[in-house]
Amino acid sequence: MKIYFAGSIRGGRDDKELYLQLIQYISQYGQVLTEHIGEKNLTEFGETILQDHGIYTRDMAWLREADVVIAEVSTPSLGVGYEISKAEDMNKKMLCLYRTEPNKRLSAMIGGNANIKIAHYATLEEAMILIDNFFNQSKGVE
Amino acid sequence: MKIYFAGSIRGGRDDKELYLQLIQYISQYGQVLTEHIGEKNLTEFGETILQDHGIYTRDMAWLREADVVIAEVSTPSLGVGYEISKAEDMNKKMLCLYRTEPNKRLSAMIGGNANIKIAHYATLEEAMILIDNFFNQSKGVE
Repeated sequence: MKIYFAGSIRGGRDDKELYLQLIQYISQYGQVLTEHIGEKNLTEFGETILQDHGIYTRDMAWLREADVVIAEVSTPSLGVGYEISKAEDMNKKMLCLYRTEPNKRLSAMIGGNANIKIAHYATLEEAMILIDNFFNQSKGVE
Repeated sequence: MKIYFAGSIRGGRDDKELYLQLIQYISQYGQVLTEHIGEKNLTEFGETILQDHGIYTRDMAWLREADVVIAEVSTPSLGVGYEISKAEDMNKKMLCLYRTEPNKRLSAMIGGNANIKIAHYATLEEAMILIDNFFNQSKGVE
């Protein structure tokens, strides 16, 4: 099982520790292709070895290769929005995890889209249960 | 000429005055379908009359209807990233305007994508010139 995990990089790294914890948890279900999203040294300046076109090409290849997509959508990100749209085009099994916070709302283009499964959570433990449910259901329909 | 202007709402409203100025400027070239993006009273809580599915359905219909898309991509936004991807799928003529700032970088999924035209600017006057060039070139190739 290959998993594409999407999270914000240049949109802001406020959630980087959470991404790392989610990636570590998700790894029990398969190979997370985008492990670098959880890197604690990866700042919002982004990757520095690959140029932007290289990053785009690699990430699109990983997205095509992935069996499932898990996106953490609490931090607004152009790249994550773009990836969710492409994953939808590719009919990937996808879960969007959104951490509920006062005075914040998920984009209507994501939250109002009936093709996209959104799971709201408050704690890491809740997110883990949602991830378990997603993989158990995915198994069921294969 | 129908124009879809994309800018951040729930991703953050720091640029709302700029969106209004851009929309007013762009209006000389046609009808801006998404004029509400520049509304000064529209907060990051988003629209309150339509529910999310209604917003999604309306915005996707406007995107299909639009002859051109202009996206202001300086404030990270899931919705704008999503819309850019769908506009790319629809082969829309599109311009992404990015305000260059120190220690900030545009998403590699947008900036590294050879299908997407990015114009960097520093001042409103520069953005206006880029918009003029975009419409004049669009006319040329029609």
